[in-house]
Amino acid sequence: MQLNGKHIIAGNFSKNGNDTFQAVNPTSGKLLPIDFSEATHDEIEQAIQQAEVAFQHYRKVSGSQKAEFLEKIGEEIMALGDDLLKRCEEETGLPQGRLQGERARTVNQLKMFADLLREGSWVDARIDTAIPDRQPLPKADLRMMQIALGPVGVFGASNFPLAFSVAGGDAASALAAGCTIVVKAHPAHPGTSEMVGRAIMQAARACNLPKGVFSMVQGKTPYVSMAIVNHSLIKAIGFTGSFKVGKALFDAAAKREEPIPVYAEMGSINPVFVLPGALKEQSEKIAQGLVNSVTLGVGQFCTNPGVVFSMQSPESEEFATRSGELLQEISTGVMLTDKIREGYNEGVSKFSKVEGVKILGKSKSTSVHAPAIGHAFQTDARTFMQNPDLSEEVFGPSTIHVSAGTKEELLKLAVNLDGHLTATLQATEEDLENYQDLVEILERKVGRLIVNGFPTGVEVCPSMTHGGPFPATTDSRTTSVGTAAIHRFSRPVSYQNFPQFLLPDELKDDNPLGIWRLVNSERDRGTI
Amino acid sequence: MQLNGKHIIAGNFSKNGNDTFQAVNPTSGKLLPIDFSEATHDEIEQAIQQAEVAFQHYRKVSGSQKAEFLEKIGEEIMALGDDLLKRCEEETGLPQGRLQGERARTVNQLKMFADLLREGSWVDARIDTAIPDRQPLPKADLRMMQIALGPVGVFGASNFPLAFSVAGGDAASALAAGCTIVVKAHPAHPGTSEMVGRAIMQAARACNLPKGVFSMVQGKTPYVSMAIVNHSLIKAIGFTGSFKVGKALFDAAAKREEPIPVYAEMGSINPVFVLPGALKEQSEKIAQGLVNSVTLGVGQFCTNPGVVFSMQSPESEEFATRSGELLQEISTGVMLTDKIREGYNEGVSKFSKVEGVKILGKSKSTSVHAPAIGHAFQTDARTFMQNPDLSEEVFGPSTIHVSAGTKEELLKLAVNLDGHLTATLQATEEDLENYQDLVEILERKVGRLIVNGFPTGVEVCPSMTHGGPFPATTDSRTTSVGTAAIHRFSRPVSYQNFPQFLLPDELKDDNPLGIWRLVNSERDRGTI
Repeated sequence: MQLNGKHIIAGNFSKNGNDTFQAVNPTSGKLLPIDFSEATHDEIEQAIQQAEVAFQHYRKVSGSQKAEFLEKIGEEIMALGDDLLKRCEEETGLPQGRLQGERARTVNQLKMFADLLREGSWVDARIDTAIPDRQPLPKADLRMMQIALGPVGVFGASNFPLAFSVAGGDAASALAAGCTIVVKAHPAHPGTSEMVGRAIMQAARACNLPKGVFSMVQGKTPYVSMAIVNHSLIKAIGFTGSFKVGKALFDAAAKREEPIPVYAEMGSINPVFVLPGALKEQSEKIAQGLVNSVTLGVGQFCTNPGVVFSMQSPESEEFATRSGELLQEISTGVMLTDKIREGYNEGVSKFSKVEGVKILGKSKSTSVHAPAIGHAFQTDARTFMQNPDLSEEVFGPSTIHVSAGTKEELLKLAVNLDGHLTATLQATEEDLENYQDLVEILERKVGRLIVNGFPTGVEVCPSMTHGGPFPATTDSRTTSVGTAAIHRFSRPVSYQNFPQFLLPDELKDDNPLGIWRLVNSERDRGTI
Repeated sequence: MQLNGKHIIAGNFSKNGNDTFQAVNPTSGKLLPIDFSEATHDEIEQAIQQAEVAFQHYRKVSGSQKAEFLEKIGEEIMALGDDLLKRCEEETGLPQGRLQGERARTVNQLKMFADLLREGSWVDARIDTAIPDRQPLPKADLRMMQIALGPVGVFGASNFPLAFSVAGGDAASALAAGCTIVVKAHPAHPGTSEMVGRAIMQAARACNLPKGVFSMVQGKTPYVSMAIVNHSLIKAIGFTGSFKVGKALFDAAAKREEPIPVYAEMGSINPVFVLPGALKEQSEKIAQGLVNSVTLGVGQFCTNPGVVFSMQSPESEEFATRSGELLQEISTGVMLTDKIREGYNEGVSKFSKVEGVKILGKSKSTSVHAPAIGHAFQTDARTFMQNPDLSEEVFGPSTIHVSAGTKEELLKLAVNLDGHLTATLQATEEDLENYQDLVEILERKVGRLIVNGFPTGVEVCPSMTHGGPFPATTDSRTTSVGTAAIHRFSRPVSYQNFPQFLLPDELKDDNPLGIWRLVNSERDRGTI
C-alpha cells in the first residue's frame, strides 16, 4: 500500500494543514518516508460532526451487522499483509514475530466482540411486566437495556501499535457498543495507523455503514488531542498511555460544560510478591520467569513487573542476585521512541542515585544506535518507603527487588501501594494460607491478582480486568481488555409502557434475538 | 424517641462542636426543638477512619449477612413508629399519608437489595477455565467478579426525607455492594435523620457488624460536605439535590489527588410531548393527569413535568387552557423549606416576566404562612428557544406549555433539550408510528421514556433507570433507583490461577452460592 499521509475524515482523505511530521525508525534514528499532516481545526470538526451524523444510524444497526463490520475490519487488516508488518516494524522497532502475534490478537479481539454482539445478551435486558391491579398503585410495564453513549474519541497507544491503536481494544469495544469513533493516531506509528485506518474505512464501505462511523486524524501536538476531548459531541474517551497525558485528558473532560467519562489506562508498577515457601522451592524458576517478564517487549508493557517484594532471608538474597545474573544474559532491543528511551534512562538513572539502592545486574543491548539497558535494582523496605521516586513507574525493562525485615513490614509495603493494574504472588499453598491478609490488601489495590504467573500476557476474554484503582486508570469500575470493556461505552435506558412495535428487539415479548434477560427478577432466554 | 441532636460516629454519639442549628417547621415557620450540632473536623475524620476500618471486615461479609442487616434496618425504622412520621411531618410539611407511603418504599427498597444479595448473581461472576496446552501460549484460569469500592459518602436529599435520605436508595445500594457509609444528613430534617440513623446503628449492633459500617454527621455548612468528598479514604459519593451543590461535589471529587466517582442526581424538567392524536382523543384525561403530576408533593419531585410540548392546533390551545383551569381547582401545600419556596417563587416570577409567556392558571394554597402557588404557563416554540431561562428547572408545582408550529419545530425542541431524567409521550398508536424520529431523539436525552403515563412515580425494580445524561446527573451510566444502582459502588477484580480455597465463594468451582455465572462464555448456574 502506498501511504498518502492524509487523515481519514468520514470516508474521505484530507490533508489541509501546513504542518507535517515524519515517523522515525527507532532502530536507526532515521526519518521514514511520507509527511503526515497535523490535523486542522476544520478537519477535526468535520470528523466529529460526521461521527455524530453517523451515530444516529449506526447505534440502531443490529448486533449481527455490527459483528460483520468488526470481522470485516479484521479481514481488511489481514489483507494488508506484510506491508503492514514491515511498516510497523520500521516505525516501532518491534520484531516481526511479536507483530504477527499482536496482529492476531487484534483480529481475535474484533472477533470476540463480534461473537458478543451476535449472542446479544451484553445489553443487560431487564423486563418488569405490568401489574395493573397492584395496590395501592398499579405497576407499569418497565423494560431496560444498555444503549450506546455517542461518538467516542479513541487515542492510539504507542506500545501496542496494532492491539491498542487504531483498530485496538478501545476502538473495537466502542464500535461494538454502537458508538462511532474518531481516532487520534499515535504519532510514533503514523504509517501503521494510516494502513489500519484505511482497512476500517474499507470495511465500513463494504458493510454499507455511514462513512462517519470512523474517522482518524494524525497529529503530534496536544492541540489535536484537546480539540477532540473538548468537543461537545464527543461523549467518552478511550486512552492508553502516560499518566501525564491521561490525567490531562481526564482533567479537560471533567472541566467541560458537560463532563464526560475518560477511560485512561496510565501505567502501573505491577508488584510481585515472592513469598518464603516459593523462594525455597522455586527460586531459579521464578527468577527466570521474572527476568523474562521484565524484559519482554523491552519492558514496554503496562503490566511490566516493576517491583519485587520479598522477606529478607538468605534465599531472597540469592534470588535477587540470581535475577541480576540472569538479566546480564539477556539482550534488550530498541525502545519505541527516543522520548520513551530518554524517559527510561532518566528513570534508571534516578534509581541508581538513591543511597541504599544497589544495581544487581544490567542486560546487554542489541542496539548500537539507541541502547536501552535492562536494570535490576535492589534495596530494603525502609529505603523504598523513604524514597517515593522508587515507587514510580519506569517504563521499560527495569525492576527493583525490595526486601522486608518482617511480615508486618511486607504488609506495610502492600498497604502503601498506589492503585496498579496487577499484583502477583509467587507462593506455595502454605504461603497463600499464611498470607491471606496480604491477598486482602492487594485486592483493594489492583484490577487483577495473579498466583504463580507473571503479569505480562493479558488474556483477551470475558473474565479479564485490565484496569485498577487510580492512578493505574481514571476509572476503576471498568476494564480496557476483554468483553466487559463494551460497558464503558453504554448507558441504561428504560422504556415504560411502550407498545411492542416501538420497543428494541432486545426487549420485545417474543425475544426475537433469543438473548438472556432478567424477566421479573428471573434470568430467562425465553419469550414472555 | 428522645432526640439528642448528636452525630452518630461509628456506634457512638458525639457532639463536640459549638455551632448548632435547629429544624424549622415549614408549615408554621417556627423552630423545632433540639439543637443539632455542626460536625467538627475531628468528628468527620473519625467517622471516615472508622468507615475504613469497618470496610475491611464488612466487604467480606456474606451476601446473606448483608441482607439480614438491610432487613434489620427496615425493621428498626418501622419500630420507630409514629414518632418518626410525626417528626418528619413537622420538619417537612409532607402529609402523613405520603410519609407512610415513603416509609414503605424505603423499607421495600432495603428488602429489594436484601433479595438481590441473597440471590447473589449481581456480582457478574465470570470464569474462563485454563487451557494448559493452548498454542502458541497456554491459557491461565481467570475469574472475575465485582467487589465493593470502599467507604462511600452519602448525602441525604431534602425532598425524600426517608426514601432518599439516611436509609434511602444511595445508602441501601452502597451497603448492599459491601461499602461502609458516612451519611451527611440533610439539615432540613435533622430529627428525622437522627431517628433513622439510630435505627441503622441499632441494626448494625444487632447484626454484630463493625460499628464503623455506618456513621452520620449533621451540618448546615458546605464545610461538612467538602470534608467528606475531599477525604482520601472516601471512594465514591451518592447525592440527590440541586445542580449547584451536585456539580460542586463533582468538581471537588475530580480535583482530588485521587479522583472518585460522584453520582449526583441533580434535577430535570422531564418534558412531556402531547401528540396530535392523543390530544384529539384524550385531552381531558391527559390534562387532569398532567396537573396531578405537576402538583404531586407540591411539585417537589425530580421527575416533575416542567414542560409540555405539543403541536399548535385548536386542540392544543384547548388542552392548555383546560390544564390552567384544572390547576385552579387544586390547593398546593407548603414546600419543604423557605429556601426551596424562595427559589420556586423566583423561578415562576422569572417565567412570568418573559415577553410572550402567558399564565394559564394558578393553584390555590392550603398555607397562609408560606404559600407556594402552582403555575401553568404558556408560550410558543420560538419564545421558548430564545429564552434559555425557560428551559431551566423550577423546582416546584410549575409547568409551561409550549406549542410548535410544525413537526420540524417540535423535533428541534427535542434536539435542543439538555439531558433529563425522563421524557413522556402522550400518544395514540398512530402518533407513535408517525413520531418514531421523536422517540429516537429523546432516547439520547433521557434515562427513561414513558408512553401514556406521567414521569412522577418512580418504580423501584430491576428495570428502572433513574438517571440520565448530564446535567440530569453527573454519570449517565448508572441509576440511583432500582437494583442496578448497586453497580455504582463496585468494580471488577480478576483472579488468575487462584487455588480454590483462596477464591471468593462466588468464583469457586462448586458454586456454593448457586449463582448465575458466565463460564467459558456460557451462562450457567451449575458447578464446574
